[in-house]
Amino acid sequence: MESREEQAAWTFVRKARIGRLATIDSRGFPSVVPFCFTLMAMPEPTIVSVLDEKPKRVTDAALGRVRNILKHPEVGLVIDHYDEDWSNLVFVQAKGIARLIEVSDPLHAHTIVQLRIKYPQYEAMALEKRAVIAIDQLRLRVWRGDGQTFGQRDDQRDE
Amino acid sequence: MESREEQAAWTFVRKARIGRLATIDSRGFPSVVPFCFTLMAMPEPTIVSVLDEKPKRVTDAALGRVRNILKHPEVGLVIDHYDEDWSNLVFVQAKGIARLIEVSDPLHAHTIVQLRIKYPQYEAMALEKRAVIAIDQLRLRVWRGDGQTFGQRDDQRDE
Repeated sequence: MESREEQAAWTFVRKARIGRLATIDSRGFPSVVPFCFTLMAMPEPTIVSVLDEKPKRVTDAALGRVRNILKHPEVGLVIDHYDEDWSNLVFVQAKGIARLIEVSDPLHAHTIVQLRIKYPQYEAMALEKRAVIAIDQLRLRVWRGDGQTFGQRDDQRDE
Repeated sequence: MESREEQAAWTFVRKARIGRLATIDSRGFPSVVPFCFTLMAMPEPTIVSVLDEKPKRVTDAALGRVRNILKHPEVGLVIDHYDEDWSNLVFVQAKGIARLIEVSDPLHAHTIVQLRIKYPQYEAMALEKRAVIAIDQLRLRVWRGDGQTFGQRDDQRDE
């Protein structure tokens, strides 16, 4: 990707409200979940996500995606826009390396602040003791349904 | 899952216009893409998808997801609904085994017909010689943001 195209891809990722994250489970199957995240500079671009208080049946440590990344840190994700006019389809795929940011790490509080700025829904949740997942070493791939260069049109639109 | 909940999950999957599919690439990273699909009974529930004519830079055989499933047939996918009111969040996650349905297989034409019924966009595309991916041995997991049982409310809504 040229730098301008890559810049557009990062903007698209940054503005997205939801992405889908895949880890690899203990049986070797990809495990895909929708996830809320924010993009931070640490200083390298890093996607961070918190194991929030949306109802879960298990503790953070037992949660599938945590177990998965501790054993197999290679993860993949996609941010996309669906439209019935397929010439408007857009996606940014990313692959990277995931790690946990422990509650004791000063970065932890910083990521919670950033996540709350993006998602007001988090303000009412006690996230201070929840595990944060950080994904870096990100490699992006972009695709548009009209075959044009990413960022040419309205890929930066808010949605 | 109880059978009624599982039935609701299948209905949710069947009605979805888009899902996100993860395969595992040659370097061991999950590779996630948005994908159009339909749910068929063969007679076991099977998710089928065609490598359509949306712009791709490579031939079907060279396309990442085809290479990936030939080497590593374990795949994962998620069908979900995002809403800023997080109590409305819903997802169905599936894991299964992917294979290619060759053009010479009588099932191939049948899947193209079914995909065109669901997606009028496919009517204008020449799909007869494109590879079809079938995913079966599907195991489902459901999740709702309000912690209720899947299928209780309006998970069957059209969208």
